[in-house]
Amino acid sequence: MHNARPLPNYLVQRFHGWRATTFADNKSWYRRLSESGQHPRAMVISCCDSRVHVTSIFGADEGEFFIHRNIANLVPPYSPDGKQHGTSAAVEYAVTALGVAHIVVLGHSNCGGVKGCHDMCSGKAPQLEETSSFVGRWMDILRPGYERVKDLPEEERVTALEKEAVLVSIGNLMTFPFVREAVEREVLTLHALWTHIGEGSLEQYTPGQGFVPV
Amino acid sequence: MHNARPLPNYLVQRFHGWRATTFADNKSWYRRLSESGQHPRAMVISCCDSRVHVTSIFGADEGEFFIHRNIANLVPPYSPDGKQHGTSAAVEYAVTALGVAHIVVLGHSNCGGVKGCHDMCSGKAPQLEETSSFVGRWMDILRPGYERVKDLPEEERVTALEKEAVLVSIGNLMTFPFVREAVEREVLTLHALWTHIGEGSLEQYTPGQGFVPV
Amino acid sequence: MHNARPLPNYLVQRFHGWRATTFADNKSWYRRLSESGQHPRAMVISCCDSRVHVTSIFGADEGEFFIHRNIANLVPPYSPDGKQHGTSAAVEYAVTALGVAHIVVLGHSNCGGVKGCHDMCSGKAPQLEETSSFVGRWMDILRPGYERVKDLPEEERVTALEKEAVLVSIGNLMTFPFVREAVEREVLTLHALWTHIGEGSLEQYTPGQGFVPV
Amino acid sequence: MHNARPLPNYLVQRFHGWRATTFADNKSWYRRLSESGQHPRAMVISCCDSRVHVTSIFGADEGEFFIHRNIANLVPPYSPDGKQHGTSAAVEYAVTALGVAHIVVLGHSNCGGVKGCHDMCSGKAPQLEETSSFVGRWMDILRPGYERVKDLPEEERVTALEKEAVLVSIGNLMTFPFVREAVEREVLTLHALWTHIGEGSLEQYTPGQGFVPV
Repeated sequence: MHNARPLPNYLVQRFHGWRATTFADNKSWYRRLSESGQHPRAMVISCCDSRVHVTSIFGADEGEFFIHRNIANLVPPYSPDGKQHGTSAAVEYAVTALGVAHIVVLGHSNCGGVKGCHDMCSGKAPQLEETSSFVGRWMDILRPGYERVKDLPEEERVTALEKEAVLVSIGNLMTFPFVREAVEREVLTLHALWTHIGEGSLEQYTPGQGFVPV
Repeated sequence: MHNARPLPNYLVQRFHGWRATTFADNKSWYRRLSESGQHPRAMVISCCDSRVHVTSIFGADEGEFFIHRNIANLVPPYSPDGKQHGTSAAVEYAVTALGVAHIVVLGHSNCGGVKGCHDMCSGKAPQLEETSSFVGRWMDILRPGYERVKDLPEEERVTALEKEAVLVSIGNLMTFPFVREAVEREVLTLHALWTHIGEGSLEQYTPGQGFVPV
Repeated sequence: MHNARPLPNYLVQRFHGWRATTFADNKSWYRRLSESGQHPRAMVISCCDSRVHVTSIFGADEGEFFIHRNIANLVPPYSPDGKQHGTSAAVEYAVTALGVAHIVVLGHSNCGGVKGCHDMCSGKAPQLEETSSFVGRWMDILRPGYERVKDLPEEERVTALEKEAVLVSIGNLMTFPFVREAVEREVLTLHALWTHIGEGSLEQYTPGQGFVPV
Repeated sequence: MHNARPLPNYLVQRFHGWRATTFADNKSWYRRLSESGQHPRAMVISCCDSRVHVTSIFGADEGEFFIHRNIANLVPPYSPDGKQHGTSAAVEYAVTALGVAHIVVLGHSNCGGVKGCHDMCSGKAPQLEETSSFVGRWMDILRPGYERVKDLPEEERVTALEKEAVLVSIGNLMTFPFVREAVEREVLTLHALWTHIGEGSLEQYTPGQGFVPV
């Protein structure tokens, strides 16, 4: 607690700017959101990466998307062992408490987490194999995906692994009983996306065709 | 994989709208971000809640903030047990790989996760005590905070617990050796914030004064 | 006037997205529509409900449908008393000025207005009986329909009343001399539809068979 | 009833196309909308004109906007006389039952209703003065606006009157006690827009500046 420090000036100024403009223009909407609760249509699982803001790409306004962001947009397999699983808790809340209609998993180019996984699995980053590496252990979720891309030419491998990260997550989502049940009742659909930061392009996984431009 | 479905039309349209405007106007910046990597100044840990977009409050542009979002903006204590810890991985990556200068923990009013924790700890939500409840086990992180607010008048208790969620996270951040070391070297500062959705207000924890308006 | 406020940001962004894509791609058509006037083929009378956009169901492009939307897609009986009748004005303009070939009345499931009428007529919503209730007085148009469904089992009654709303409107349309005359000259046909929001189904009234799937 | 006819083929085909594509891709969302009800953020009052689809301009998806469309996007003054007022009923439902945060009145260029009002008020359309003219009596709502534009040069007058139609409606909205009260509590804001069909432009009324491009 005693380690908390005052906010840097640039953030204080930006907050006051937001409050005098966007908030002032939308006050009635924020009040209603506050009083009536959220009814988001979709959950988005994307990366922490500072270059990928789904709120921008999809013009997301307050109240629309329930957003979980972690390293490399990964969902671990269902594992109700009584331990702390932040991603699984977010998925459970979105599906069972909020009843979202869509879960969108959004991967991206130049993903540092996926690159680390690639280097770890190919023997180039032994420090990520250590028990104490949180990033290494988190990226273990993607190891099955590495097996599927390891024989590709080197220049294609990391991008392919970024897309595998999305598909592994979609596959793991289906191991959650409440996700599977909602998908089977046709009240929930899953969507697998990958965006190229520099090109501003978006691809979606289409069964039988792989990732194709939207 | 075979469960991935085409993106709903409204998101396809919004993406194309973004690409034709925001992306087109900022193409050179996106290209540079893609080629030179990210150099975010701060990490933000906030809630998945659809009503709290830090990208809006702080006018965040692509490349500025490394953002982790989970239920109730919680950071668990340091626990290098070789298991998967998504939040700890995000903090490790931000501090050791990216070298962010700030970690901002942003709590908020009307937080469903915190409300669940309150109900669980006060005996009103026994289902959250079950081993299989991911939300319940995740909110266990906040139990020490409940002890500090449980004797407050009922109408103040949930808000107080929302602010405790921020302080518990700040406290837990300091249990990570690489965080503590960076704070002590004065290359990293921690910031504890809470926002009221309906009022558009922002409070920051100030040692000796508690939470005060920014 | 002085109460008009700036448009919320999200709508500004969406407008610019539309202008850069849909408008840019169809500029010649919009220009022609602007210069040559509208020649819509059909009038649609549907509900204000946010879940029923006839423009979506029928893939309506600009220029195709003259659309009037009110609570519960109702048409009042012909009543040329010199007072303001917005629905009657819309019908008059469509038939006498634009010469539409079809009038489609589209009802729907889960209609709040029809539910209110049901509750009012069955004594459960006395506040809707008050003179000052605009919704109550508007739903008076549907009272004759309630008489025809009131003896049905409770679980069928509201849906039946939604369909009655369409038929009452068709019946009332025929009380307008210019509608009757155009129907008799076979330059105008009337169509009675009902859609189920959750099933995405569409039924049409067929004399002798009632509402049957399209 | 016996006057209802089968739907024209082109609409049957379009419906089936929509059902096989848009509906199939969004089934989970439509189901949820059906089961959980609508929570639209805004009410839009626009014209029946076939060339102005607010669902297009604002990329409106199902569930977002509660839309009332009448001739010339007019709102009459508050008049709780126990008669049928469809527009007043729609406003009452949006504000008191749905609690929308915004009411957007959208006017447009080339408006036939406004042109009729102009011709009627300037003596060029005596048939619209007759008691039996529903369009004429409806356009009476705009007469106060004509007084404010009648001395403008002829080529500016109709466009100015289109914008007056929006402002008259905003002014009349404030005569409804439930609208005024919600505006004063800052849970509702009103927005005055005008769009040029051929240019794809959008202007908003800004106090002190008049209509300026968005």
